[in-house]
Amino acid sequence: MPRVSQDQLDARRQEILSAARACFARHGYEGATVRRLEEATGLSRGAIFHHFRDKDSLFLAVAEDDAAAMVETVARNGLVQVMRDLLEDAASPETAGWLGSQLEVSRRLRTDPAFARRWAERSASLAEATRERLARQREAGVLRDDVPIETLARFLELAYDGLVLHLAMARPAGDLGPVLDLIEEAVRRPAPKQAD
Amino acid sequence: MPRVSQDQLDARRQEILSAARACFARHGYEGATVRRLEEATGLSRGAIFHHFRDKDSLFLAVAEDDAAAMVETVARNGLVQVMRDLLEDAASPETAGWLGSQLEVSRRLRTDPAFARRWAERSASLAEATRERLARQREAGVLRDDVPIETLARFLELAYDGLVLHLAMARPAGDLGPVLDLIEEAVRRPAPKQAD
Repeated sequence: MPRVSQDQLDARRQEILSAARACFARHGYEGATVRRLEEATGLSRGAIFHHFRDKDSLFLAVAEDDAAAMVETVARNGLVQVMRDLLEDAASPETAGWLGSQLEVSRRLRTDPAFARRWAERSASLAEATRERLARQREAGVLRDDVPIETLARFLELAYDGLVLHLAMARPAGDLGPVLDLIEEAVRRPAPKQAD
Repeated sequence: MPRVSQDQLDARRQEILSAARACFARHGYEGATVRRLEEATGLSRGAIFHHFRDKDSLFLAVAEDDAAAMVETVARNGLVQVMRDLLEDAASPETAGWLGSQLEVSRRLRTDPAFARRWAERSASLAEATRERLARQREAGVLRDDVPIETLARFLELAYDGLVLHLAMARPAGDLGPVLDLIEEAVRRPAPKQAD
């Protein structure tokens, strides 16, 4: 049997994650049977579970992968930018799949305490990235300074959750640009009044 | 057979709705089997479906009932007050059940176009109540007037959706009071500056 390189293993892992993400988004966690995961990935269950211990681990890996990408964008450009990107790509199949898996995460957080505990560790890094970026922005003087960072962070997180739910329900996305402007404005330092 | 009065029919209908709401919230739409609905209501399937044509109609009736109560509060006190009420009662089993059914609605909107069409008619009255109240508030001079009512309404709806998702995921509710203050402030006319 030929040796498989680490690069090949990683690439295969990414292929499985991508196909599994679409499958979970389409059928939900329960509906994404091992049979359907085989069809979606084009691999046998043996091959899939060589890379991921079980279906639960596969689902968590998909969700973690999404969360890691988001942490990166938040650290660089902030949560409002994540929302703007989401709005722009709302119609793409990738985004639809991603939104579906977000709702699936929220359903499992509600119904599965073991999952909720595993997930809590992962979501901590996103919360941290949001607060660190806000702290840097306050330092730079662009953030309002009459409201604690923690409140501003929770406000942005609430707006983000709202956008996820809005888009996941396939409501129209086109008219939310001005709403994101309003959200951004609410956390920023007011522009100095022009002299009369 | 004794005649059953309209009041008795209405009362029975309300009992079924209330038990069914808890059942849908706990098991989701798919998981709330007819068997489980019988257990939850303490009634036979014949008795349940005497009042509601089928499971889908029962689910829609639950969701409509929730929406009607919300329209009333929005018309009277606005969407921010709905959010404050939700926050206050977040720990109660009724709210947990209600949140569950909201998420279930959102899942079905995404996966079931026929349901989405039926639902669209119902959600229109909530959107209308929100905008009417904002228009009255603008007339009364308490609303900011540099942003269209439509944008303010969508902003509040996004925040509301975010709160629903936040609470439905059983995240801590206690610290969101200041966030709701920030949301309210973002749609209000700024207080006049005090003279220096």
